[in-house]
Parts: sequence; C-alpha cells; structure tokens
Amino acid sequence: MSWKTLLLLLIPALAVAAEPAPTSGPSSAQLSQDHIVTDTVTTYGMGLGAQRWSPLDAINRDNVANLVPAWTTALETDRGQEGQPLLYDGKLFVVTHEATFALDARTGRKLWRNKLRYNKKMLRMVCCGFVSRGLVMADGKLFRQTLDNHVMAIDMETGETLWKQLASDWQEGYTMTGTPLMANGVLITGTAGGDMGTRGFLDGWNPETGEKLWRFWTTAAPGEPGGDTWEGDTYLRGGGATWLAGSYDPELNLVYWGLGNPGPWNANMRPGDNLYTDTIVAMRPETGEMVWHYQVVPNDTYDYDSVNELIHATLEIDGKPRKVIIQANRNGYVYVLDRATGELLRASQYVDKLTWADGIDMTTGRPILSDSTRKNLTGEEVTVWPSNIGGKNWAPASFSPKTKLLYLNGLEISMQFKPVVMAWRKGVAYASAEFSFPEPKPGVPMGYLRAVDPLTGERVWQTPVDPPANGGTLATAGNLVFTGLQTGELAAYDMDNGHLLWQHQTGSGIIAPPITYTLDGEQYVAIQSGIGGLLAWFLPNPKFAEVAKGASITVFKLFKPWSAQ
Amino acid sequence: MSWKTLLLLLIPALAVAAEPAPTSGPSSAQLSQDHIVTDTVTTYGMGLGAQRWSPLDAINRDNVANLVPAWTTALETDRGQEGQPLLYDGKLFVVTHEATFALDARTGRKLWRNKLRYNKKMLRMVCCGFVSRGLVMADGKLFRQTLDNHVMAIDMETGETLWKQLASDWQEGYTMTGTPLMANGVLITGTAGGDMGTRGFLDGWNPETGEKLWRFWTTAAPGEPGGDTWEGDTYLRGGGATWLAGSYDPELNLVYWGLGNPGPWNANMRPGDNLYTDTIVAMRPETGEMVWHYQVVPNDTYDYDSVNELIHATLEIDGKPRKVIIQANRNGYVYVLDRATGELLRASQYVDKLTWADGIDMTTGRPILSDSTRKNLTGEEVTVWPSNIGGKNWAPASFSPKTKLLYLNGLEISMQFKPVVMAWRKGVAYASAEFSFPEPKPGVPMGYLRAVDPLTGERVWQTPVDPPANGGTLATAGNLVFTGLQTGELAAYDMDNGHLLWQHQTGSGIIAPPITYTLDGEQYVAIQSGIGGLLAWFLPNPKFAEVAKGASITVFKLFKPWSAQ
Repeated sequence: MSWKTLLLLLIPALAVAAEPAPTSGPSSAQLSQDHIVTDTVTTYGMGLGAQRWSPLDAINRDNVANLVPAWTTALETDRGQEGQPLLYDGKLFVVTHEATFALDARTGRKLWRNKLRYNKKMLRMVCCGFVSRGLVMADGKLFRQTLDNHVMAIDMETGETLWKQLASDWQEGYTMTGTPLMANGVLITGTAGGDMGTRGFLDGWNPETGEKLWRFWTTAAPGEPGGDTWEGDTYLRGGGATWLAGSYDPELNLVYWGLGNPGPWNANMRPGDNLYTDTIVAMRPETGEMVWHYQVVPNDTYDYDSVNELIHATLEIDGKPRKVIIQANRNGYVYVLDRATGELLRASQYVDKLTWADGIDMTTGRPILSDSTRKNLTGEEVTVWPSNIGGKNWAPASFSPKTKLLYLNGLEISMQFKPVVMAWRKGVAYASAEFSFPEPKPGVPMGYLRAVDPLTGERVWQTPVDPPANGGTLATAGNLVFTGLQTGELAAYDMDNGHLLWQHQTGSGIIAPPITYTLDGEQYVAIQSGIGGLLAWFLPNPKFAEVAKGASITVFKLFKPWSAQ
Repeated sequence: MSWKTLLLLLIPALAVAAEPAPTSGPSSAQLSQDHIVTDTVTTYGMGLGAQRWSPLDAINRDNVANLVPAWTTALETDRGQEGQPLLYDGKLFVVTHEATFALDARTGRKLWRNKLRYNKKMLRMVCCGFVSRGLVMADGKLFRQTLDNHVMAIDMETGETLWKQLASDWQEGYTMTGTPLMANGVLITGTAGGDMGTRGFLDGWNPETGEKLWRFWTTAAPGEPGGDTWEGDTYLRGGGATWLAGSYDPELNLVYWGLGNPGPWNANMRPGDNLYTDTIVAMRPETGEMVWHYQVVPNDTYDYDSVNELIHATLEIDGKPRKVIIQANRNGYVYVLDRATGELLRASQYVDKLTWADGIDMTTGRPILSDSTRKNLTGEEVTVWPSNIGGKNWAPASFSPKTKLLYLNGLEISMQFKPVVMAWRKGVAYASAEFSFPEPKPGVPMGYLRAVDPLTGERVWQTPVDPPANGGTLATAGNLVFTGLQTGELAAYDMDNGHLLWQHQTGSGIIAPPITYTLDGEQYVAIQSGIGGLLAWFLPNPKFAEVAKGASITVFKLFKPWSAQ
C-alpha cells in the first residue's frame, strides 16, 4: 500500500487535519504507519511495534527462487554489519560503525556519506564490537549513535551533521551500538558497556535542537523506587545497559525498552533484586517517567541481559484479544506482557534445553531457580543452558500477525560458568566470572531458524543453521521468512515448514536484519553483509575460515531481463 | 571445449606422448592451450598470446540481458582491484596487493588465503598504486609479485608459500604490481618504479626452486649493444620499467615484453635514443637473450611508456597472412610487428587527436616529431595529445580472431606539459616535468569503448564511457565485448556496434579485466571490483564521489531459478 492510497482511502480525515507534510522526511504520523506502508521503511523494526513483518507478497514462496541481486554497494569498512537500512523517497539510508550513507535505491550509487572520525585509543577500548545497528528518521533528519557515545542528527538531503551531543564518556567503558527511537517527537537513545562497570541509562532529546530533555538511570539510587534492591553503592557500577532498541505504542503513548544484565556478573557481589536490571520498562517519552516495569530475572547471575526486541502484537489469551508485548529473552523463556499494564500473561520455554530455572512463578513473575543455579550462587562451577549468548542473541525476531508465530534465530548452546570475585577498574570488563563455551560438534546444531508460538514456546518447526544465524529475520505475507547466514547467504524459508527455498551468497557473513519494500511497483529485499560481532568471536566454528571480511549492501528483486532505464 | 575433449579428439597423440599430467596444476602444454580450452583460465590474458578472446557463445547478445550474479566474495581490502583471476579444478585464484585467495568457484567460499605483511614505511612510499594485476600458474604452483618486490611461489592446494625471493629494494623506489609470465618452464617477472630514478629489468627464475636464472637490464650499459644511446651514467636511473605483463609464442619460443618510458621525463636530461626504453623486445625465456627489438619512441619526452599488452594475432597484410604482435601504445599509435622478426608492418593513429608526432616513418620506424614537440624539447610548455595517461592506459585490450578488431578502453585526454630540470634523490619521483590534465567537461567524453582496426587505427565504432573505463575488455564468440566501468558496473556491449546490452552494479568501481569460462557446463563471467588506481587519482571526475570503496569478486551466469545443490 502506498502513502497516497493510505492517505486518500483509509484516513481521509488526515487530508484536512494533518500537520503539513515535511518536504524531506517522514512525519510522526508516517512513522506510526511504517508497519502498513510498504514503499518506505521509516523505522527500525519495520514498524514502531518491531514486528519485522511485511504485508508484501509479490515475492512469495512460488517465485522466490527467481530472486536475484539488483545491485551491490560496498560500505567502506571490513568491520561487522549489524545495521538495518531505512528507505525514504527513493533513497536507502545505511549505517556502519563509522559512517552513514545515503544510496540511490534504484542504482546503489552513493549520494552522500557522513563519515565519523574516532579517537584511536577509544577504538582499542570498544567493549562490544565495531558495529552500529540502525538509524531513526523524522522530519528531514536522520539520528544515530556513535561508538564514542555521541548522538547526532544528520540532514537527510545533504548528509550534513546538524547537531552532535556527547552522552557519556568512552573512558568509563561506555559505547553506543544501538538504535535510537523516535516517540511522540522525542528522540530516545540507549547505551552499551554494561559489563564494564558502568551504570546504564536512557536519554531523551529534542530532535530539533539536540537539547537533552531527560535521563533515566537504569539502576535505582538510594531513596528512589527500587533503590532498596542494591547494597551500598553497587548500583553505580550495576550495569543495566540499554544497547538495543525500544519500541513505541502511539495509542498508549508508551515507550518500551529492555534493560540489560546487572554488573558484575557474580550475583553475590550485588545482593538484592538489582532493579531495574534485566527488566522490561514502559515509560513516557516526554519525561522518561516509568509507568510500569517487569523484572525478568532479579539478581541475575548469568548475564542473561533482557535487552531483546519488544514485539507488539494482539494475541488471543483466555478467549480474549490482548494487546501485548512479546520478548524472546536470552534466558530461554518467551514472555508475553500486557502492553498497557505490564501484567505477565505468559512465560514459556522456547529452547530445547534450559537448566538455570525450573519455571516462572506466574503469581510473582519470578523465576524458580534450579538446584544448579543455587549451587552456582555458592561459587560452584556449573554447566548452564542456555549460555549467556542466549536462547537467541541480539538478532531481532519477526512476528506474523497471520500465523501469530515468532520467527527467530534460535540457539542451543551451554556454558561453563564459575562466579569469581574481582575488583572494579575503570574502563575494564567487570565480568567476575570464568566462563567458556563448548566447541561445535559435527552433526550437533548449535543454531536453528525457529517458528515459535509466543504463548507456549512451542517450536512449530525448526531448521538447523550452522554456524548459528545471528542477524534477525523478516516475515512476509508471501509466506516467507528471510534471514542472513554467517556464511554469507541471504536465505528465504517457507513460513509453513522452514524449508529452504532460496539463497544467495552476498560476499561476507551476514549478521544484520533484512528489510523489504516496494520501489517503482516492484518488491525488493535489502541486506547488509559483513562478518563481525560477538558470536563469531565466542563460537569459533571452522566454517568462519571460509568467510571473507568486507562490508556491502545488496538489494534483491525478482528476475527480469536487463533493459536500459 | 573441455580438456577431455581436446585431449581425446584433437591431439590424441598426447595420450601416449604427453608428460604425466600434474595432479594439482596445469602443465606447460595446458598453458599453451589456454586460448582454446574454456573450462580453465590458466594464463593472464586468457592465452599466452593475450587476446582476451573466448570461443564461448552460451552467453551471447540474444541472452546477455539474462545475466545475473551467481555469488560475490569480499576480498578483504578497500584498495583498488586490477587483478585478473585464474580458474583451475573448480577453484578461482584471486590476487590483491596484499593477499592471494583460492575460492570455490561454485560457491565463492574462501578455501585458503595467503596474506602478505608489508613494512609500513614501504607502504608510504609505494609509487604506483596499491594494486596487483595477476598470477601465473604451473605444475601445482601459483606465482605472484609483491609490492615489496618479492617473487613468490604458492602451493595451489594449500595456499602455503613454497619460496619467496627478493628481486629489488623498495627503498630505491622499486615496486611490483605486474603479472609474471611462464615461458618454456621459466618464470619471468618485471618491475614497476621507472619514474623513481630506478633502472628497469626483467628476471628469469626457476619456478621449482626460486633460483634466479638471469637478469635483463632494460637500459643498456656502456659497451653493451645500445649502450651508446645514453650519456654518462644516465642509464643507471634511466627507467624502462616492465610493470605490466609479457606474452609468449611457444612455437617461436619467444617472450615479448613492453618496456617502459625513460626517466627522468625531460628528454634533455638524457640525450640519445635511450635504448631499450619505450621498446618492444623479443627474447629467449631460458637466457633473457634479446632476439629482436623495436623502439617505439626514441628519447621519449612525454612519459609515453610502451609497456602495454602485446597481442598475438594472424592478420592478412598485403595479401599474405602474417603472424604478428599488436600493441595499442599509450602514444596513440597502434603498432603491428612481425612476431618472428620485429619488422614494423603498420603504425596507425587510433585516437581522434594526436599532436606529439606527425606520423611514423615506416622506413626507419621512428616517429616524425611535430613542431609542438620540438618546441617542448626547448623547454616550452605545450598542450599535447594524447596525455601520458595515453590513448589507452594499462587496461588490456581484447582481440577477436573473427572480426580482426581490437576492443579497448580508449581515452581522449590532453595534458599541459613543461619539462623542468630536477635533481635525482633516492626513492623520490624523478619526473622532471610540470604537468596537468584538464577538468572533465559535461558532454565532452574523455573515454570511449572502441573497436579498432589494428591495421588502420580506424574506430569501427565507439561508445562514450564517463568516467573513462580502465579495466580492460573481454571479447567472446557470443558477439559480446565486456568491460567494467569505474562507476561499478560490469557491462556487455554488442560487438558489432558497441550498443550497451547489459550491466550490473558490483559494489565499487571496476578497474580490472573480466574473464569467462565454463563450470559444470555453464558459462560464467567473473570480475574483480574495487576502485583505486592512478586514473581515478589523475582525473577527478565528479562521478567518483558516488563510488564506494571496497574489494570483491562477482561471478555472473545466465539466470536460472535457484534450486538446492
């Protein structure tokens, strides 16, 4: 559906009531329709509700075997590519850790590049990978975060930097790899570096001026609500990073964000529930005021984080349609919460093996710790499933409103984990644990593409992927699930059964999420390629030796014989 | 035609008489058939005669619009790609300035990488671009040259370095960017750096052991034949680099090599003909003994070089078929020489504008210098056509034995040129001229893809290309001419009229020659992509701003719907 159709047919009232459309970028109203409109991609997650679902079906399971590259453009780095491009006005906007690009969506030509210059000392310290995951756009501007903790606005037309604000100090261990969120005219940004002895936060900014509107610290200070869940000044180095991206419900005017693991990892070093680490929060964009919260793992000792994407959906629960948030958490449970109240509706195991808990107490919402976790808390080394890499890692899942299923890059990886006591040192990893992962074994998959029922955790189907995929998925009305492989192929699977229907080698390993859109009436699929990221580092699969380094973006469409434009 | 067919049908005697076929690489007999055999590419130039012609016609002008990428593989650098891949036993062998790769030709997967480590001081001094142009293979080994002047042998199976020999000192200004030649079991290598006050040479090596067999200095010393064409010790810094590649006639057992311009550029600083600069030589591979030579420009003052590819052909001249060598020289003339004797048969202007000479005296073989060149020799600044970038630059032309035409990346660029006197300093450019090129003007092409009659210089057709192409061409029996564009497209043109029939954007600018071959019965076209090189530097066309940096190789074939292997 095009913007024209939408405006003329569906909400004709807008034709009178709407604010004047900005000439060079989407309005807030447009951002809120990104999950419906198919000729732009204005938000990270392909919709403020992060479903990564497209109603497009021109590319479908009957013809996806005809998908071919339309063009490729190099991205001028050999670092990992985790970025999701945006599309507006015939231009693709692409983010790498050190540059932002506007590309002509028809030809791949570089229209402008906004290049970042980093301090070399800073680059030696970057904790969390040389990556950037995405951009947000509004009213003629792009917004991004930088590895050296700047938040910046870029002119969509010219690529010029309009403003740039420092959010935090890289020398303390902070870095920024995540994606901002635009909610009710407020730009919201998070931070990485929670395992470096930092204190997590979210910031709200005036997108026009770069003025900081508010800061929300993710670890509660004494005297604040939740401040009694920390001892002494442990909250000051308590982690709770916010390194992925939030989502937004314009009707409820609530922003949702997943807050990361507490630090250091050894739970005995920070007695208490450690609010608001490993917590899903709902807040007002204008003020950062918390409206509700649900803590997934109080006093987490396994670095389970809880930053993963928060997918908005309407699910039938106990016979009633409920507006919910779904999070497939690193800890192996998929959580379903009421979007307005935070009420825990479901919490279901979505991995084959899970040993850290014996279930979730649905009355209190707290995990029932397993015997092995209790042993671990006494300092004993244990084998724990899933590992801190998670039942899935950062890679965003997609959700089909038709099948009501999640499609995700699932993992089955254990870790050896022994908590230790360590001293904090500024800018140094504050892990306080000895941990390791098993070597990959031939014939024993560590990764699966999975269709997961968010209400039960059931794997409706699963397809082994080796090495595990870690770039995220895209679900379409063409009954397709797309995901990139770390061996470099963009691949399409049958949404009904997970059968591989098509793949194409893009040049390097893929660790980024695909998008789809229409341009000049044709459906395209775009993907950034470029191996990197933490998974390839932690899981040294021998197949990585066959993967070349180098960043690019490739755009695919159904084959047609070439003809002059 | 496959090796099997060739062996069984065409030369059955080989089945008895041939030496045992090496298990992991081509024999000399195979190298000599590279222009006929289509399921391997064992030589630079797609044949020892450097025709860059393929008898394949599965991809042809009727179906080339259906050409699509089969796979892409990143090449782990953002430097320019001038390399020509080789194909053997289902593997593509690819060269960059800092690595050699073996790729699975079916999937693009990296089988091995042989990485070079360079001295950082050396990299700051590299005179002639961070490029490497090609490999040679024989008997299970690959041979290449390195920027720091090593000649090395690599095991084709494992990628291990078998031997590595130092040829010259980078601190003197030498570097190596060219392609070795294998001739009658001798490995022959050249050098770049002729504009740095060095003395050019060719070396012969034992490919098994790396033992140096001979050295041929390209500037004649006192007492040697030609030694009287230099004054004093000017020959010691007299240039004559050998920075591209030679060709070889196995029947005549003659190696042909184009020797570069004299140094410094100001001819008055080195009175005399300056043999053997700007000269085409024929020599014995076993000894480096010169059998004949033809000096294209005695006492050259415009840096016209004469290193360009020497294409073997049989042309009808004065009613008789003659085995010839063709060189489209930088100076704007295309030369045709008898391959056995070096007799000058034709010398024809192949550019629109040529002002440095009034023609070639066919009796003496010497150019008739124009008035403006005579003025220039007195120290006056002149506008000269073509510039020292040439009527074509290094990019290798192709030749069709059917049409008897050359297909080349032609240039129409002048330069302002004023000779000056300068002192030699070790390792510093020894140009002794002030020179500049005009800004590109909209609507005035500086580059053309041209079909050129080597006997007359006639441009049978020409197609403007902006910015000028500089990667070389490939001609096929499918009536196609392929060339890469500096804006990133691999393009195919109708051999009869130069009309564009197909193009595809590869990710970065192309400055490398395409190859074609069959694999599993299908025809493929392969090209390295990656902007760089000197042309983009000297001619700052505004379109370069739209080209991204990043190296890759893409392999194309006719579209078929994807299916599981």
